[in-house]
Amino acid sequence: MHVHGGDIYTYQNMLDYSANINPLGIPQRIIDAVTEGAKRSAEYPDVQCRELRKALSQSENIPQEQIICGNGAADLIFSLVLAKRPKKALIIAPTFYEYEQALRAVGCEIQYYYLKEEKGFRLQEDYLDLLTEDIDIIFFCNPNNPTGLLSNKDFLTRILKQCEDHDIFFVLDECFNDFLDEPEEYTMKEFLSQTHQLFILKAFTKLYAMAGLRLGYGLTSNGKLLKKMKEVTQPWSVSTPAQWAGIAALKETEYVAKTKKIIKEERNYLTKSIDALGMTTYGSMANYIFLKGPKDLHEECKKHQILIRDCSNYEGLTNGFYRIAVKDRNNNRRLIDVFKQCLKDLEGADQCKD
Amino acid sequence: MHVHGGDIYTYQNMLDYSANINPLGIPQRIIDAVTEGAKRSAEYPDVQCRELRKALSQSENIPQEQIICGNGAADLIFSLVLAKRPKKALIIAPTFYEYEQALRAVGCEIQYYYLKEEKGFRLQEDYLDLLTEDIDIIFFCNPNNPTGLLSNKDFLTRILKQCEDHDIFFVLDECFNDFLDEPEEYTMKEFLSQTHQLFILKAFTKLYAMAGLRLGYGLTSNGKLLKKMKEVTQPWSVSTPAQWAGIAALKETEYVAKTKKIIKEERNYLTKSIDALGMTTYGSMANYIFLKGPKDLHEECKKHQILIRDCSNYEGLTNGFYRIAVKDRNNNRRLIDVFKQCLKDLEGADQCKD
Repeated sequence: MHVHGGDIYTYQNMLDYSANINPLGIPQRIIDAVTEGAKRSAEYPDVQCRELRKALSQSENIPQEQIICGNGAADLIFSLVLAKRPKKALIIAPTFYEYEQALRAVGCEIQYYYLKEEKGFRLQEDYLDLLTEDIDIIFFCNPNNPTGLLSNKDFLTRILKQCEDHDIFFVLDECFNDFLDEPEEYTMKEFLSQTHQLFILKAFTKLYAMAGLRLGYGLTSNGKLLKKMKEVTQPWSVSTPAQWAGIAALKETEYVAKTKKIIKEERNYLTKSIDALGMTTYGSMANYIFLKGPKDLHEECKKHQILIRDCSNYEGLTNGFYRIAVKDRNNNRRLIDVFKQCLKDLEGADQCKD
Repeated sequence: MHVHGGDIYTYQNMLDYSANINPLGIPQRIIDAVTEGAKRSAEYPDVQCRELRKALSQSENIPQEQIICGNGAADLIFSLVLAKRPKKALIIAPTFYEYEQALRAVGCEIQYYYLKEEKGFRLQEDYLDLLTEDIDIIFFCNPNNPTGLLSNKDFLTRILKQCEDHDIFFVLDECFNDFLDEPEEYTMKEFLSQTHQLFILKAFTKLYAMAGLRLGYGLTSNGKLLKKMKEVTQPWSVSTPAQWAGIAALKETEYVAKTKKIIKEERNYLTKSIDALGMTTYGSMANYIFLKGPKDLHEECKKHQILIRDCSNYEGLTNGFYRIAVKDRNNNRRLIDVFKQCLKDLEGADQCKD
């Protein structure tokens, strides 16, 4: 089984830097909403998620009928792939594992566009050359996970144009868009009204620190696809507490503003500190940082009760690549101290071997 | 889209007899557990549902590694079908709609065994004749939904034997087994250790009145299937609050005992009362009653703010068949009063037409 970040159940009592969760924690308003939702949970959930979609429609400024909710964004990836049944897909490597998992579940052939270390893992123009007739679907994560790197709207527009020309379905994962300083500069939402070839994926998971509640959503003007997605999945996929939590979360505007401020400051602090330790960072714009370090860093950190994401099981990566979440200053200081200690110990161990 | 029971969001402020939920309501212990779960929901859920599976292992007396949890039993139906990719399935008509929906999602051919009204919708011996080499999978709901009728263990054993002989995978839905007076007389759990051809489906949904929380589980000794099911579904399908709720629910032994007592008494009361009104019941053993009445009964009940399950959209049924939940005496009295009034009004309307 693929090992993900955030497995605090195997590694108990560890400071978890392996999952990209908002360091401010789950807002009390959301916990209260979950309790209210639980009280109404003798009944089945609303299969149409009406109140939640209404609230999302307002916050996203997208018509309600173009919104679909799921049991986390991952749920929607699976139902979309099951609805589309693509024969051949193009995905980036490294990227979020669930695209590949869902595609393999329907026996889809996968072509990878490998990001290159020597290009700083930045997507290059030659990506466009791969958008050919034989491709049915692409998954594109912006900012990309685990690299945290962004493609700009101009480039995304060119991708969309080619997708339309070659009848390729464009799944754009904007799950980390809301952590950006200027989300509107990067989202492709405005194109939804113009094309049926685009599906934008979003989640409450990370922004509102509610990964355990499972709630994601998708945006598309492709009504036929939405109908088909509902046909290939159970009607009650989104729990009542999750629906209530989502509605409550959308009221947390101050929390989101505060989050962005902290993430920006702390990402800068961490990046500088890691660079200063002689490890390599790649200019993440998200709430996590991708880095290259000594190959045993993950194991070494565990000795200090810190869990970081070992990225060696990502397609396109080898040992020595890691992803860390951006947390608050106290924790980040501890992480940097532990990194310092680990590097010293690993260096010492290397010298002993000589 | 298929319309299910329990759609209290379309029909607001109605007394809902259309979903088969425990009339005792969701226990406070479960609501408290959900709140606790929400507090831990900044983190991802345990993908292995370790604590929940441990608790289930004790209560079901089945090894932990033979238990899989899902986002409701419906979630497991989909992942099982996606893992198995059957070419041809045999299902009973009428029965729970999700078997068909999941099978269609993978393009599986479906053969129906039609229960006959003139046989009181009881399964007949000729069902066994259809268990032939060309069938890959069967779904079998015991007691059946919506009829509430049971097949006994002797007959189920003969089905299992034929499944083994003809390499047919046997999915046995025991979601309503715990409502029976003698669940152990009907469950096929004891066969799990002897065969890899059996999967038993169960849910917390109805018994603990927690349909909104989404939690179901499956039992099988087929480790290869369990591995494959995990490959074709997201790892985080069961939310943290649902996992906590499940663990809490298993402690509600008094609640379950009380439930069985009430269901038995009230089922008898409702059955007698409905029979006395001149409508037909079929001897349900579950927490719901299947009945035949005038074709506009469903619409007529709505005028009295009562929602019953119109079964006309079930494969194998036509207008005039309904399913009602078994609730507490006060509500049941109200239902019977409304039925009485509806029958009178419908008769009056018929006479006006003459």
